Amino acid sequence: MSIHTGGGDGTGRDTGEAQEAAAILARTRAVVDPALRTAVGSLPGVLRRIARYHFGWEQVDGTPALGNPGKAVRPALVLTAAEAVGGAGARAAAVPAAAAVELIHNFTLLHDDVMDRDTTRRHRPTAWTVFGVADAILAGDALQAVAQRLLADDPHPASTAAASRLASCVVELCVGQQVDTALEGCPPAEVTLDEVLAMAEAKTGALLGCACALGGLYAGASQDEVEALDAFGRESGLAFQLIDDVIGIWGDPGRTGKPVGADLAARKKSLPVVAALASGTPAAEELAELYGAPYDQGDLERTIRAVERAGGRDWAQAQAADRMARAMQELSRAIPSPESAGGLLALAEYVTRRTS
Amino acid sequence: MSIHTGGGDGTGRDTGEAQEAAAILARTRAVVDPALRTAVGSLPGVLRRIARYHFGWEQVDGTPALGNPGKAVRPALVLTAAEAVGGAGARAAAVPAAAAVELIHNFTLLHDDVMDRDTTRRHRPTAWTVFGVADAILAGDALQAVAQRLLADDPHPASTAAASRLASCVVELCVGQQVDTALEGCPPAEVTLDEVLAMAEAKTGALLGCACALGGLYAGASQDEVEALDAFGRESGLAFQLIDDVIGIWGDPGRTGKPVGADLAARKKSLPVVAALASGTPAAEELAELYGAPYDQGDLERTIRAVERAGGRDWAQAQAADRMARAMQELSRAIPSPESAGGLLALAEYVTRRTS
Repeated sequence: MSIHTGGGDGTGRDTGEAQEAAAILARTRAVVDPALRTAVGSLPGVLRRIARYHFGWEQVDGTPALGNPGKAVRPALVLTAAEAVGGAGARAAAVPAAAAVELIHNFTLLHDDVMDRDTTRRHRPTAWTVFGVADAILAGDALQAVAQRLLADDPHPASTAAASRLASCVVELCVGQQVDTALEGCPPAEVTLDEVLAMAEAKTGALLGCACALGGLYAGASQDEVEALDAFGRESGLAFQLIDDVIGIWGDPGRTGKPVGADLAARKKSLPVVAALASGTPAAEELAELYGAPYDQGDLERTIRAVERAGGRDWAQAQAADRMARAMQELSRAIPSPESAGGLLALAEYVTRRTS
Repeated sequence: MSIHTGGGDGTGRDTGEAQEAAAILARTRAVVDPALRTAVGSLPGVLRRIARYHFGWEQVDGTPALGNPGKAVRPALVLTAAEAVGGAGARAAAVPAAAAVELIHNFTLLHDDVMDRDTTRRHRPTAWTVFGVADAILAGDALQAVAQRLLADDPHPASTAAASRLASCVVELCVGQQVDTALEGCPPAEVTLDEVLAMAEAKTGALLGCACALGGLYAGASQDEVEALDAFGRESGLAFQLIDDVIGIWGDPGRTGKPVGADLAARKKSLPVVAALASGTPAAEELAELYGAPYDQGDLERTIRAVERAGGRDWAQAQAADRMARAMQELSRAIPSPESAGGLLALAEYVTRRTS
């Protein structure tokens, strides 16, 4: 599940923080989009077309799309972390890092869609379904290269450390995706909660953490501050994943987007399900039996109740709250002034509540 | 066709240059292998296993392989170019760049094998046939990241320029592979010689050129010298491809490795074939007709003769000689002293004659 898949369903809580997050995202897109378009525009021929399509800027035939591009959560974390540490100048200087993070994110989306055989992304057919598997793989490969070139060509004194950190993050993203695809083929009883938590941290937490860390690096933060920023992003990312998994089973009264029960129908080993299976309760046994059999629409209500009675929902909500508390702790360690930390706080709330 | 596929068939010309090239390759492996093993060893879990298998260091079960690792032509070009420009010190300093180039080469091999559905590489089953498509893609992605991290972590003053140049080369390799897969589906009559030459330059020439250029960068060469080194590698790579295509049709009396006619059976749009088709001769028409029909063993001799009568062989051999002449010209521009240029010359001869 990607933080970017939401399409602005428009029914989110209209709090001050949500408004602040929306303003930050809009400000981010205004400065990062041109850098992204230049970077993607440097690709030749077909690869450029695929990337522009994937980013939501063009239709298949190359005409402009008035679509649903990504919300730029990760670039916003880069710029907002840079600003929190070093002010407006640091924010402006960090634009190449923000663009590089977004290019890496999109390289992994292109490849994940191929591997997972996902056919829809941001309400459009995925690139591989339109351009073929080979070309989608190559466009992803080229985007990783372009992201690294952006940092290598950036004269900022932090760009080299950022390049190294971003490359390490790519390895972690690959590991997360590798474990995710491996767990899909595992019998549910053999999947441990620690494995699924580690996978979610690698797949979702790592790049959010890296985005915050790069912002810190570009603002000249100390090693300690950079690590705290990374941990803030990671914990926020895990909280997001937990809440997203809860919404995938029980739905969200404040939203209309996602069909309730889709994750269960796909027998997804989401965090609440694995926690429920590991609970040692009678409901866990019932759930294991249900998950062992092919999906039957008539079993959906029973499955949902089994996860609930086995404590899967309560555990996920408590874990999410715990992760958010840790995220706040790391944030105050990185940015002691509540005023300076406000933007990152708003983004974390936005990400985890999925308000829009 | 990869420069690395040859398995030391041992029947090559035993000239002084071949001996020199063999010595350079052995010296290269002695210093680059440890750096490669450290870089690959930094990968976690399954990705490390896949990479070690792909490099030929391990069997599928993780036990050591006494196999057929790559010959390290590209790392040898990096180190030999560095030495030619800056002496032994420059050669020693360029080891991270040599390892990075080899990591990039292997990332593209992993992905190309997935896209081309190739089942054999260096006399072993390809990684995707053993570990699955998803894991092979992810191992390739991780190797690209590790290559860039190696340069980002290298304090050498040229490492950033090398990282940028290597990233641009990756884009070019992706374009080459993209065009190659696209041309496969094209009717032979619609493929132009310029397209196939450009594809071969992007797919084979670009990384050989980049390897030489990185060696120059690490040795503090001027911009002009770096570009001349790049051009030397590119032209040598094109000469290699032309000769390899000739061997693919007519075989090489000095070698026993490759089955004659395999390229024609696969209806490959190799350089001699496209040149023959574009010749406007009656033999070209005959060849177009043969290529338009499914392969029939009985037609092999006739097809070979048609390519020959249409001038495909002569053209390819003349082109290869022309490219080698250009390569030598670029080499003397980059390294005016014949003594200093000797190593690069030996490698170019080795690559294009495929002696071993």
